[in-house]
Amino acid sequence: MARGVCLAIVGATGAVGQEMLKVLQERDFPVSKLICLADPREEGTLIDFKGETIKVQAASRERFQEADIALFAVGTGVSKELAPQAVECNCVVIDNSYAFRLVDDVPLVVPEVNPEDISWHKGIIANPNCSTIIMVVAINPIHKAAHLTRVIVSTYQAVSGAGKAGLEELDAHTRAYFAGQPVEPKVFQHPIAFNLIPHIDSFLEEGYTREEMKMVWETRKILHHPELKVSATTVRVPVFRSHSESINLETRTPLTPQQVREILSQSPGVIVQDDPANNVYPMPLFTSNKDEVFVGRIRRDLTNDNGIAMWVVADQIRKGAATNAVQIAEMVVEGNYY
Amino acid sequence: MARGVCLAIVGATGAVGQEMLKVLQERDFPVSKLICLADPREEGTLIDFKGETIKVQAASRERFQEADIALFAVGTGVSKELAPQAVECNCVVIDNSYAFRLVDDVPLVVPEVNPEDISWHKGIIANPNCSTIIMVVAINPIHKAAHLTRVIVSTYQAVSGAGKAGLEELDAHTRAYFAGQPVEPKVFQHPIAFNLIPHIDSFLEEGYTREEMKMVWETRKILHHPELKVSATTVRVPVFRSHSESINLETRTPLTPQQVREILSQSPGVIVQDDPANNVYPMPLFTSNKDEVFVGRIRRDLTNDNGIAMWVVADQIRKGAATNAVQIAEMVVEGNYY
Repeated sequence: MARGVCLAIVGATGAVGQEMLKVLQERDFPVSKLICLADPREEGTLIDFKGETIKVQAASRERFQEADIALFAVGTGVSKELAPQAVECNCVVIDNSYAFRLVDDVPLVVPEVNPEDISWHKGIIANPNCSTIIMVVAINPIHKAAHLTRVIVSTYQAVSGAGKAGLEELDAHTRAYFAGQPVEPKVFQHPIAFNLIPHIDSFLEEGYTREEMKMVWETRKILHHPELKVSATTVRVPVFRSHSESINLETRTPLTPQQVREILSQSPGVIVQDDPANNVYPMPLFTSNKDEVFVGRIRRDLTNDNGIAMWVVADQIRKGAATNAVQIAEMVVEGNYY
Repeated sequence: MARGVCLAIVGATGAVGQEMLKVLQERDFPVSKLICLADPREEGTLIDFKGETIKVQAASRERFQEADIALFAVGTGVSKELAPQAVECNCVVIDNSYAFRLVDDVPLVVPEVNPEDISWHKGIIANPNCSTIIMVVAINPIHKAAHLTRVIVSTYQAVSGAGKAGLEELDAHTRAYFAGQPVEPKVFQHPIAFNLIPHIDSFLEEGYTREEMKMVWETRKILHHPELKVSATTVRVPVFRSHSESINLETRTPLTPQQVREILSQSPGVIVQDDPANNVYPMPLFTSNKDEVFVGRIRRDLTNDNGIAMWVVADQIRKGAATNAVQIAEMVVEGNYY
C-alpha cells in the first residue's frame, strides 16, 4: 500500500462503528490519521485507537475535507445527507446504510464476490445488507459452478442487527423475564426474550418486509444476476450477534452435496463445518467475533434434483457489516481507487 | 358420549403427560376412572385430577386390564414394549412416540385433517410428530383447495420438544450465561441459551435428521399424499414452548394470498393472524397454552406463480402433542371405536 490513509468513521460510537475500529486495528489498515465522527450528542467521547486517544467530533461537511475515505455506519437518513457532502470533498464513501445500495451508479460490493465493481465507483460504494452479505458469500461459489436459478431462504437474525440498543434490549428483556417483570419493547415491535418476531424493517407491498426485499434486490445486484428468483422470510431471534440462514438453492446444473462441500472449502471467506456425525455444524454462539461465513448441513434438497439445502451462519456485526466495509476500504487503497 | 371411560395415562409425570391431564379437565373428557402410570422411579407421586388425588403407579401390563383407552406420552422404547401389551388387554392406545407412526396398519391422525382414519385402527392410533401436526393443520386446507405439490419448511423449535428437561436446560443455561458460569449441555448437543442448534433427533442418511424426515414421511401419510415433495430443515431455538415454521408451498392450482387467508379463516383449528400493518403475526411467546395453529405472513412466493409463503406457530406441548392426543381420544369415544 502506497501511503497512509486519512480515514473518517461516521457513527464511530455505534455497534458497527466500534467494530470497524476493532477490525481496522486487527487488520493493520494503513491509517495515517483517524477522524471519529458521530451524532452531536456523542461529541467529545474518547476512543482508543492503536494506543492513541481520539476525540469524537460532530459529523459535518468540513470534517471530510481532509479525509481520503469515510466509513459510514449510520442510518439511511444521515447517510443520504452527509455522504454526498463527503464526496464533494473528494472523500470516497463506503456506506453501510440502505441509502445508495440500489442506485445504478453505486457499486454494491462483497469483496469475495464482486471486487471488480469497486473500480467504477463515482465516490460512493455501498456495503450490502448483513443477511445478504452472509448469503452471497456462501452461494456465489455455487452460482459460479452451476448457475443459480432459485433461492428460498429463511433467516434467524440476531438482535445485533438493531445495533447496541438491540443488544441491550435482549439482555434487559431476558433479565426482566426471570425477575417476573413486565417489559416494554422499544427497539423491537414485541418482547424479544424467548420469542421470535417475523418482522424486520418495515412492511412493503405484497406483505414482504424491506429486509426480505433487500435479500432479493441486493443479491441480484451483487451477483450480477437480475433474473435470479429469491424468496426470503426474515425473523428476529433471541441471539446476540450472529445471523443464521436456512437456504434451499436450485441450480441449472445439478451438484452433489460433496461437490458443494469441495467448492465451498476452496472459496474465500467460507469455512465448511459439516460433520453431523460429530455434531459439527455452524451455530451463532460459536461464530461471534469471526470474519468468515460458516456453512454446514449441506445436503440434497429432497424436492428437486437440482436442489441443495444448507445452513449458513456468520457474525452479523463483523462480516455482515464492519469487516466487509473494511475489506472494501482495503481494496480501494490497494487499487488506488481514491 | 355414551359412558365414562376408564383412561390410563402412561408418562403422567412428564411435560406432555401433565399437559394431557390439564387438557382432559379443560375439555371435560368423560373419565370414569383415571389410571396414572409412569416409570417405577415416579411411583407414588400424587396427581390432582378434578379434585381427586391419584397415586402414580409403575407402568406394567396388568395396569391396562381395566383401561378402555391409554394415552402414551413416553419414549419410543417404552411405547414399543408396553403398547402391544395394552392392546392385548383390549385397551385402545393413542401413542405420542415415533414407535408406530409409519406402521401400515396404524392410523396416524390429526383430527382436523384425517379423522376418518381413526375408524380402521387395530388397537393403536399414532399421534404425529409435533412439527408435523402444526404444519399439516395449516397446509391441509390449502391442499384440499389447490393440491399441494411441494413444501419447503424451516422450523424454529422450542425446547419443550425435549420435555421437562429441555425446558429446565434453557432456563439453567440462560441463568448461567448471565452469571458468567460455564454450562454443560445434557439434553441438547450444545449450549442452547442465545444459540441455535440445527440438529433435532439423530442424523440419518443423506445428512437429514430424523426430525426432518418425520416431517416428510408423516406429512405424506396424514395427507394421504405419498407423492408430496417435502424438504425440511429443523432447528432448535431458545424459546420455551411454541414451535414456529417458515413454509414455502407450491400448489397445482394457483391461489392468491387473499384466497389462502379466506380458506384458512374457515378451517378448523386455525387462527389467521395476518395484519402486518398493525404488527400482527403469530409469535411463540403469545401462542403458549393455546390449542390452535396460528398462521400469518401469508404472501405470494416471489419465485413461483403457484407458490405461497407463510409463517405458522403453535404450542408444541398442546396442539403439537397433548391436545391432539386428547382430541383423538374424544373421537374414539364419540365413534365408539373402543
